[in-house]
Amino acid sequence: MKFSCDSSLLFKSINIVEKAIAQRTTISVLENICFELSDTKLILRANDLEIGIEHAIEVSVDDTETVFPTSVLIKGKTISGILSKISPQIIQITVDENNRFKIVGKGVNYDIMGMSSDDFPVFPEIEQGEHVQLSVEEMRALTRATLFSVSSDETKPFLNGVFIKSDQQLLSFVATDGFRLALKQLSTQTQFENIAVIVPFKAMNELTKILSLLDHDSPLNMVISAQQVAFFSDHFRLVSRVIKGHFPDYKQVIPKLSSYQVKVSRKEFIDACDRAMIIASVSNFVVRLTFEDNTLLLRANASLGEFREELQVVRTKGEGTVKISFNVKLILEGVRAIDSEDIELEFNEGLSPCIIRASGQLDYVYLAMPIRTNDYQEDTF
Amino acid sequence: MKFSCDSSLLFKSINIVEKAIAQRTTISVLENICFELSDTKLILRANDLEIGIEHAIEVSVDDTETVFPTSVLIKGKTISGILSKISPQIIQITVDENNRFKIVGKGVNYDIMGMSSDDFPVFPEIEQGEHVQLSVEEMRALTRATLFSVSSDETKPFLNGVFIKSDQQLLSFVATDGFRLALKQLSTQTQFENIAVIVPFKAMNELTKILSLLDHDSPLNMVISAQQVAFFSDHFRLVSRVIKGHFPDYKQVIPKLSSYQVKVSRKEFIDACDRAMIIASVSNFVVRLTFEDNTLLLRANASLGEFREELQVVRTKGEGTVKISFNVKLILEGVRAIDSEDIELEFNEGLSPCIIRASGQLDYVYLAMPIRTNDYQEDTF
Repeated sequence: MKFSCDSSLLFKSINIVEKAIAQRTTISVLENICFELSDTKLILRANDLEIGIEHAIEVSVDDTETVFPTSVLIKGKTISGILSKISPQIIQITVDENNRFKIVGKGVNYDIMGMSSDDFPVFPEIEQGEHVQLSVEEMRALTRATLFSVSSDETKPFLNGVFIKSDQQLLSFVATDGFRLALKQLSTQTQFENIAVIVPFKAMNELTKILSLLDHDSPLNMVISAQQVAFFSDHFRLVSRVIKGHFPDYKQVIPKLSSYQVKVSRKEFIDACDRAMIIASVSNFVVRLTFEDNTLLLRANASLGEFREELQVVRTKGEGTVKISFNVKLILEGVRAIDSEDIELEFNEGLSPCIIRASGQLDYVYLAMPIRTNDYQEDTF
Repeated sequence: MKFSCDSSLLFKSINIVEKAIAQRTTISVLENICFELSDTKLILRANDLEIGIEHAIEVSVDDTETVFPTSVLIKGKTISGILSKISPQIIQITVDENNRFKIVGKGVNYDIMGMSSDDFPVFPEIEQGEHVQLSVEEMRALTRATLFSVSSDETKPFLNGVFIKSDQQLLSFVATDGFRLALKQLSTQTQFENIAVIVPFKAMNELTKILSLLDHDSPLNMVISAQQVAFFSDHFRLVSRVIKGHFPDYKQVIPKLSSYQVKVSRKEFIDACDRAMIIASVSNFVVRLTFEDNTLLLRANASLGEFREELQVVRTKGEGTVKISFNVKLILEGVRAIDSEDIELEFNEGLSPCIIRASGQLDYVYLAMPIRTNDYQEDTF
């Protein structure tokens, strides 16, 4: 293997595949990145047996004759560290028959011990399956709105991922941990077959990080089969197993009708919740909301003191005073995932979930379960 | 206590004194900030029994009559958290006879449990002693150049601080850990008595953080007595005990004459050391330097591979090839503390320390001890 390439392009490529390098593994070969030269294409791969990521860049091959070996393993941490310290320039990389990996640039000369690629796991082929094409931007919006609601409770593996579901031309991403649910939808031009797959948190999370390195409007393909989900574009592939199990019927959980609805400034609501958090953080994050005419009163109390703040809201549905308590952390995460000036809160009396939406937008729904606070609904606190 | 003040001024004041709030203490009263109202001055104090910090701001007192109590303790973490979440505005603070601390602002209403200030340690008076006046900027330069070289070896307490020494009109700050030494000097207009004091790392470190919050050119006073060192300006005081013991004779350690001297670009040298670090980090940070005519060759080797890089230097003294090995971390920290385009390295053959200076500047000297690498001086590696 002998080629020249732009060090910053190589570094970006390493940054993409290193997300799949195994952390704290006993199988040390999985700590490596596999470099493979195929004609003028350098293919980088990492694989922790759960997800595999592949990325390719164009390089200049200096010799017409092939120099063996054509693939080699390099410790991911070492090669990433080296590239992070090299100023952008054309570097020359040579790998000899003893797998010594030499990097030569302006004044720079590294000579690293590589390993034979024989023991590296074979990169999974993309299986036949249902095909979806989105833009990078669309995929980012879908994951950003849902990923944070995935459950980390390992006794419920079917909640440990994002559920991707199709309905005619509509694509839905859903995540829930039993206390809140996030649903983001995208209308497409494609008539989908019946897609219903749970993609593990890790695959979606690493995909999100990689998407931030790709062009916003470049196309991203998704292929869903029974065992596997693959995301790919021209130069990049991420393949992951899918989670077996039945995702809960989320449509049943979302209230069809709400008795009350208010509109409030997203920023003012976030700021007030942030302030309430200082007191609420020492009392299980409980924040009590009282809606009265066109005001919303937020209250928190704990041994260290009390907090109260009044916000102006626009009551768009329902009358009279309503009291309802929430875990302020759950509420905040849902509101932070929204990009709009105003948000709408919809709710019913009792322990029915509260719905949070971006004002006037129907493609995103966030549900949060209220907290039972018996001392509160009746008293004057 | 009843007053109004600008929340951002109060937050800044809290940020200054909270550096002296005790962390992980069993004496819970030390986790508090003491608020004291004296006429129209609000004095904030924190004290962890090692250092004490006081800061005052002007406030508007709404009533002509005094409202008791005039002082109260508030948990530092709580009040700091609250102020960090309040948008800049005029807030009103009232403390009642039960030490309930109420903060009222635009829509904001906190009611926090305070504590009586009776149990709070008395803030140390500034003792009589030798007086030094510097600008904030001068003090920052003196500490920045030396603080990182302080030893953390608790068996040598006399090295656990910065040694401040006067010699006529010259003020010297010195720190060493036995492997390197940093000396920064300032010529003043004052004829000093014989100052020689070791100021604990913690006091100097917190002072540095506070200085970054003060105006660059505002005056900073230092008073040094037998037991204590105090730093103060108009609104601020930091008082610390001093370290007992004899600081080593640093003048004796600095070589009077060097056989070799080279000049090199500071940035190029730092970048090359950073790159060498990736290999050196797995072999005790040893980097081998070879000076030959007008080149400097940096080399590192470890089980994972080798690194070499050649830099252009200007040889200003001495001839022939010289080989010398260093802990690259020690070298880097010294060079990073310098603000100049070029640096000068002075050294002798053998295990005599290397001197690093900013090119053409005599007020800063950094010494680093070389590492004995027997395999190296003779061989061709």
